[in-house]
Amino acid sequence: MAHALTLNAGSSSLKFGLFDLSAVEPSLIASGKADRIGGAATLTLKNPDGVRLIDAAPIPTDGVVDHQGALATALNALNDHLPQADIVTVGHRIVHGGLHYSGPALIDAKSVEKLAELEPFAPLHQPHNLAAVRAAMQEFPQAAQVGCFDTAFHRDHPFVNDVFALPRAYYDKGVRRYGFHGLSYDYIAGELARTAPQLHAGRVVVAHLGNGASMCGMKAGQSMASSMGFSTLDGLPMGTRCGQIDPGVLLYLMQQEGLSADGISTLLYTQSGLLGLSGLSNDMRTLQSSDSEQAQQAIDYFTFRARRELGGLAAALEGLDGVVFCGGIGENSSLIRDRICAGLGWIGIEIDAAANATNAPVISTETAQVKVMVIPTNEEIVIARACAKLTG
Amino acid sequence: MAHALTLNAGSSSLKFGLFDLSAVEPSLIASGKADRIGGAATLTLKNPDGVRLIDAAPIPTDGVVDHQGALATALNALNDHLPQADIVTVGHRIVHGGLHYSGPALIDAKSVEKLAELEPFAPLHQPHNLAAVRAAMQEFPQAAQVGCFDTAFHRDHPFVNDVFALPRAYYDKGVRRYGFHGLSYDYIAGELARTAPQLHAGRVVVAHLGNGASMCGMKAGQSMASSMGFSTLDGLPMGTRCGQIDPGVLLYLMQQEGLSADGISTLLYTQSGLLGLSGLSNDMRTLQSSDSEQAQQAIDYFTFRARRELGGLAAALEGLDGVVFCGGIGENSSLIRDRICAGLGWIGIEIDAAANATNAPVISTETAQVKVMVIPTNEEIVIARACAKLTG
Repeated sequence: MAHALTLNAGSSSLKFGLFDLSAVEPSLIASGKADRIGGAATLTLKNPDGVRLIDAAPIPTDGVVDHQGALATALNALNDHLPQADIVTVGHRIVHGGLHYSGPALIDAKSVEKLAELEPFAPLHQPHNLAAVRAAMQEFPQAAQVGCFDTAFHRDHPFVNDVFALPRAYYDKGVRRYGFHGLSYDYIAGELARTAPQLHAGRVVVAHLGNGASMCGMKAGQSMASSMGFSTLDGLPMGTRCGQIDPGVLLYLMQQEGLSADGISTLLYTQSGLLGLSGLSNDMRTLQSSDSEQAQQAIDYFTFRARRELGGLAAALEGLDGVVFCGGIGENSSLIRDRICAGLGWIGIEIDAAANATNAPVISTETAQVKVMVIPTNEEIVIARACAKLTG
Repeated sequence: MAHALTLNAGSSSLKFGLFDLSAVEPSLIASGKADRIGGAATLTLKNPDGVRLIDAAPIPTDGVVDHQGALATALNALNDHLPQADIVTVGHRIVHGGLHYSGPALIDAKSVEKLAELEPFAPLHQPHNLAAVRAAMQEFPQAAQVGCFDTAFHRDHPFVNDVFALPRAYYDKGVRRYGFHGLSYDYIAGELARTAPQLHAGRVVVAHLGNGASMCGMKAGQSMASSMGFSTLDGLPMGTRCGQIDPGVLLYLMQQEGLSADGISTLLYTQSGLLGLSGLSNDMRTLQSSDSEQAQQAIDYFTFRARRELGGLAAALEGLDGVVFCGGIGENSSLIRDRICAGLGWIGIEIDAAANATNAPVISTETAQVKVMVIPTNEEIVIARACAKLTG
């Protein structure tokens, strides 16, 4: 029985999934996560029902656990629990596919070399993604390695959404609006096609709201515009990232505050967003349960910017038929959904409070012009499907 | 007969107007401009009908003409043509009023010192504005000096439109969304109150489209949100300025291209926008009459970003009753207005092609939900009114 292993590597974490490829649609048989790679690393393994087979067990090590060590430990654990697994393909979430990848692709050592050239475009994600690819190539030299790129879903968006108003030389050398969270948007587009084909054919804004957050304007399931552009900083405010900011602020930080590029990068990626505004936490749940004024202002800002971005994307789409919420916040916070949608009655949005309170699949009223949905996203299945298709 | 002199100083230009204050509404009696200050400076003087009394005459000099020299020459010329003028007050356009000015104010040497502290927030405008104030204080030690601030109109906008998602310390030290073009928006709000009071009471997006460009969302004539924030770089693309850009691009320019803060500032303020995208010109008229593909793409980008920003501001206003175009491009380019409004039918915008072609005051169809107007802006009269009001 052929299996696919999916890997999603962050700076200090490695999420993995094991999928059975024997049916047309891959089916999950186990998933897990190595946390705190580089520190006191732990491993968790769950069965498809979410039952923990291993619960944050320390990963034994003589020195420091790196991505390769974490992967080896995860594979041992999988082997203990699922000795019959036959991993014939490994699928990787890779944040940046550059100009060339507009879909998943088989990758080899040479592709990895090319993808490493994109590290300057996504310095906080790409190196870790590629570390996992290299580790998987060592562990599974015979398996087909499949790259699934977060930028790919957006690659065919129109020129006006691809370019910045800089001298052309920058566009030519790759300074473009790539857009990210593409695996999630791909999944949502598929779910819309399956469950709401009429909406899929129309104009939909998908709000992927997690610790990272972005919005994508789709027409007929294709990306037309995104709130994220060149990096994963732009657009919506996030847990610790600033979202939209005036370039003059960066000039001010350099010229007046004497911050270095690395200092600004640390500030904008790790100390800003909800954490910076609230002075309390990057976690929306913590803010929602806080009665501090700054926490409430952070929520106000988040929901206001999301509403403003949604209006901008509706204009980019020349109208709006639907909105989909997904991601940790989008799927679970009725308050945030309600606050974003409040004041969008003029655009045809009307929330059914009871449906919203239970995270129901459809949370708009029956008579509303714009259908508002909650769809739990699933980036892993998108990777597994790509593995199945490309190794077919 | 008491007169007000209005001054609007750029880096290499000084625009001036002479107003008669004897009636309730100040009336223009002459206007002019010194150009190329710091180089081969010239002076132009016009009567209120636009007839040129002096047409780009070289300003005689032994060395370099500075703002004070330009002002002295302008005053000599005014004196030759209007020897009876009695300048009792001088009004100044000052780009940045910081946190304290939410309206025009009498200013003295001490205020100028305080305003100079804001130079880091507007390095390309504020120093020249203040150079003109200092020159006027020397020329007219007895006159009341009046500061009119481009930020003042926006100062009372809501917190969510004032803040960035940075640690709070930055907000406290003045890193905020100030918004600019306030004198123009103030004028438009006044014209709406006078000529379209019902619209004035509603939700209006004003598009000030010139070589500098921004949009302001107003409710009942008050600024609620703007496309410009901390600096004059953000929001819409402009003649040579980039408009909205991903902060990751600036990090890339620093870390990968090795650009200094000054290098980035020069790039984003003077080589980007329409000029950068077209590779041809910062002047919309030149682009409109060009058949180069890059010029057409620059126009596409400009109109697309304006439409997207308009959608975002409509969401910020929670609906839209009207749109007003002003500024050089907004008042004169039917093509640009048409292209921005195309695809906004879903928001209730519908352009009457014949009215639009003639720059008519109202360019929407009679049945359109959203009224679209063209109102020639007049920043000078706003300054003159402030002079009249503050000198009683």
